[in-house]
Amino acid sequence: MRRAEFWYEFASSYSYPAAMRIEALAAERDVALSWRPFLLGPLFAGQGWRDSPFNLYPVKGRYMWRDLERICGALGLPLARPDPFPQNSLHAARVALALDDALRPAFSRAVYRAEFAERRPIDAAATLAALLGEIGVEPEPLLARAVEDANKTTLKAQTARAMALGLPGAPCLTTPDGEVFWGNDRLEQGLDWARAHAEP
Amino acid sequence: MRRAEFWYEFASSYSYPAAMRIEALAAERDVALSWRPFLLGPLFAGQGWRDSPFNLYPVKGRYMWRDLERICGALGLPLARPDPFPQNSLHAARVALALDDALRPAFSRAVYRAEFAERRPIDAAATLAALLGEIGVEPEPLLARAVEDANKTTLKAQTARAMALGLPGAPCLTTPDGEVFWGNDRLEQGLDWARAHAEP
Repeated sequence: MRRAEFWYEFASSYSYPAAMRIEALAAERDVALSWRPFLLGPLFAGQGWRDSPFNLYPVKGRYMWRDLERICGALGLPLARPDPFPQNSLHAARVALALDDALRPAFSRAVYRAEFAERRPIDAAATLAALLGEIGVEPEPLLARAVEDANKTTLKAQTARAMALGLPGAPCLTTPDGEVFWGNDRLEQGLDWARAHAEP
Repeated sequence: MRRAEFWYEFASSYSYPAAMRIEALAAERDVALSWRPFLLGPLFAGQGWRDSPFNLYPVKGRYMWRDLERICGALGLPLARPDPFPQNSLHAARVALALDDALRPAFSRAVYRAEFAERRPIDAAATLAALLGEIGVEPEPLLARAVEDANKTTLKAQTARAMALGLPGAPCLTTPDGEVFWGNDRLEQGLDWARAHAEP
């Protein structure tokens, strides 16, 4: 059984191309993916950052935007810088988590497209409702379920697990043997690892 | 004319595999490389860091060492963690810069091998003298030239140029049209860019 977990944060810029690329890469390698939305905020707070490192360190930020422009250009993905950046991703993460596993990838890609291609505010309930509608989900019950205590607790636990696994940022791939692969540019390597080190 | 500049810092861990890989990658693409040693210290100080970010942020540090282990493993490069890390790279950078352009790549690779494969102290004059000997250079006159004011000034100017170009870390590739590619994992992309956007 070849498995990997795909960890992503809706506010994370490099998670956008990763989310758009990963299903095809996993399918090519016959790796079953679990999509794991989580929050970078608590990880960053643990390192003393109260904002995105791309804002705190402008040299890194300038580099990232140009790098992302080239990456998206090569993939044919539209890119429009969200304003403000980073977006508040809490509600989108809760909604993604409240969905059935099978619907999470399509919803997550829809969020990234809205955020990084269409500059829509992903913290707005109207945006999330529209995106749920796009994937054929009745918005109101799902938005209500997203803010129930059980779902909030699940997101907290998932974020705590990301920290316990030692994720340094997003996106990441993790494999059952405990390896962590950080970055859009490590997807192929992580999936190759999952294939080569599959459990019997 | 296809050209690119390869920016590296002797204390930088990811610069090690990059220095070992880059000549073959550049030759495949017929790109003429200029090797540019520089110092990360002033760049990091500009972002408020007085130590390697891999030490300041232990989660990133742990990830980096495992990532580097996998990268070196795949390349068949030995890896032994320098102690202390980072090494003081000032003298090695001065020596590299004092050499003829044609000798700089071989000397630089020798420094990385001594540091990251053999755990030798690269701030020691004895290490640098031995490495110069390995590449067929009489050590004493070169070590003397390395600490002359003119050479110190050249290193300062090169580091200032790295900052002006907006390098966020090391290693980097830069192309004549002002693009910056950061990381061992961007060498192919940067060299492909140099080939595709060559000046007439």
